[in-house]
Amino acid sequence: MKAVIITIGNEILKGRTVNTNFSDIGKILTYSGYDVIKGIIVPDNLEQIAGAFKEASSIADLIVSSGGLGPTYDDMTLKGFSLAFNLKMERNDNAMNMVLKKVHTLTPEREKMGMIPENSIPIENKAGTAPGIYENISGKVFIILPGVPREVEAIMKEVEQRIRIKDFHYVDRSIDLHDAKESLLAPLIAKLMKEYGDRAYIKTHPKLDNGKPWVEVEVSASGTDPDEVENFVSRILEIIEKEADKSNYE
Amino acid sequence: MKAVIITIGNEILKGRTVNTNFSDIGKILTYSGYDVIKGIIVPDNLEQIAGAFKEASSIADLIVSSGGLGPTYDDMTLKGFSLAFNLKMERNDNAMNMVLKKVHTLTPEREKMGMIPENSIPIENKAGTAPGIYENISGKVFIILPGVPREVEAIMKEVEQRIRIKDFHYVDRSIDLHDAKESLLAPLIAKLMKEYGDRAYIKTHPKLDNGKPWVEVEVSASGTDPDEVENFVSRILEIIEKEADKSNYE
Repeated sequence: MKAVIITIGNEILKGRTVNTNFSDIGKILTYSGYDVIKGIIVPDNLEQIAGAFKEASSIADLIVSSGGLGPTYDDMTLKGFSLAFNLKMERNDNAMNMVLKKVHTLTPEREKMGMIPENSIPIENKAGTAPGIYENISGKVFIILPGVPREVEAIMKEVEQRIRIKDFHYVDRSIDLHDAKESLLAPLIAKLMKEYGDRAYIKTHPKLDNGKPWVEVEVSASGTDPDEVENFVSRILEIIEKEADKSNYE
Repeated sequence: MKAVIITIGNEILKGRTVNTNFSDIGKILTYSGYDVIKGIIVPDNLEQIAGAFKEASSIADLIVSSGGLGPTYDDMTLKGFSLAFNLKMERNDNAMNMVLKKVHTLTPEREKMGMIPENSIPIENKAGTAPGIYENISGKVFIILPGVPREVEAIMKEVEQRIRIKDFHYVDRSIDLHDAKESLLAPLIAKLMKEYGDRAYIKTHPKLDNGKPWVEVEVSASGTDPDEVENFVSRILEIIEKEADKSNYE
């Protein structure tokens, strides 16, 4: 199953905010059984938000967005989403109750957070006011989250079980090769990918400590039996550890 | 002038690595005078890399990518870039000399880093081995960087002056409003955006400290005269500070 992550917000494009929501969501989707095939980052702009949702839904089964659900003038994610799929925005009692649990007085800006696209389901936001949104359009699932990281985390916890692919186990382990150089390891990694690449993914991450280069080698794979996947990944890591020693380090 | 940032790498999509390159590049482009209109994140996949470059060049004047310039099998950014614009890959003497400055022996994987797309210019990488790439195709400028953050920083330093838009000054200041609530500030922000929105951009960032919510209000603008822009932004911040006091905090 394929997933696309959308991040909405000028502050991300301007580099004012580091996009930790993206990695938090990416990790959850990967461990839940999805192949995250693209990330799209757009500004607080109605047409661009609508365009991102349309593009994502044309290539993925699951689309998760974060940002733009708040009370201010530039929070327009739900409007953009509705524009993309020609949906009406409706006052939703469940959503409004979720908002009212958090605030004492209802202003127009707060009422806005209780207006959601038709047929969508509000998801409780235990860490903030604006509910998350779950919607299924012709078999494509959309999860729409606010931009505050702790709220993303809280809402993802609520929906994780709903999107999890059954009997899927993803394992990602790594080994630190001190004194190794990425370019000298490359032939070994290429050889192992030829042998195990139909199932495993091996990637080298070059590092530097006090001017001394070293390499972290990551091996990941997935399967239905957790022990079997774990053993498979461990076996490849053992080969790397043994064979890397023989590589001609400069 | 419009810019698009492309990030290449499975580790970003899987959430294994937080995309700090994106914010580092976004900040430099914003302060250099560009409007970053989109971010595209793709895996280590030839067609998807080519697609990202094509998409970016159809909407932006400047395209900056990071990731996939190294020596391993899955470093294929230059191949994807060449595929997108039908360019030949050529051995480039300057690029090869830059690589040879860093390594003692030349393996096939290292030679790969001296092969670059036709008509492109290698940019010195003072923090690593793979040179960055600068290429102008029909007036669109492409800057292609490795994925290691310190190398991104080093190469961007080399090209910053070349891409900087003359007489452009971007100012971004903020004020912390303790005891404020984003939804209650919203009408004031909307009012100010009506008055100053043709030039200024105002955004609220809700925060939480020990369970106590507060709001950071960001004001940014740009212009040719640095003092004038600074004064303009300060004036709006002063209004916010004064008027926010009057907002009916719950």
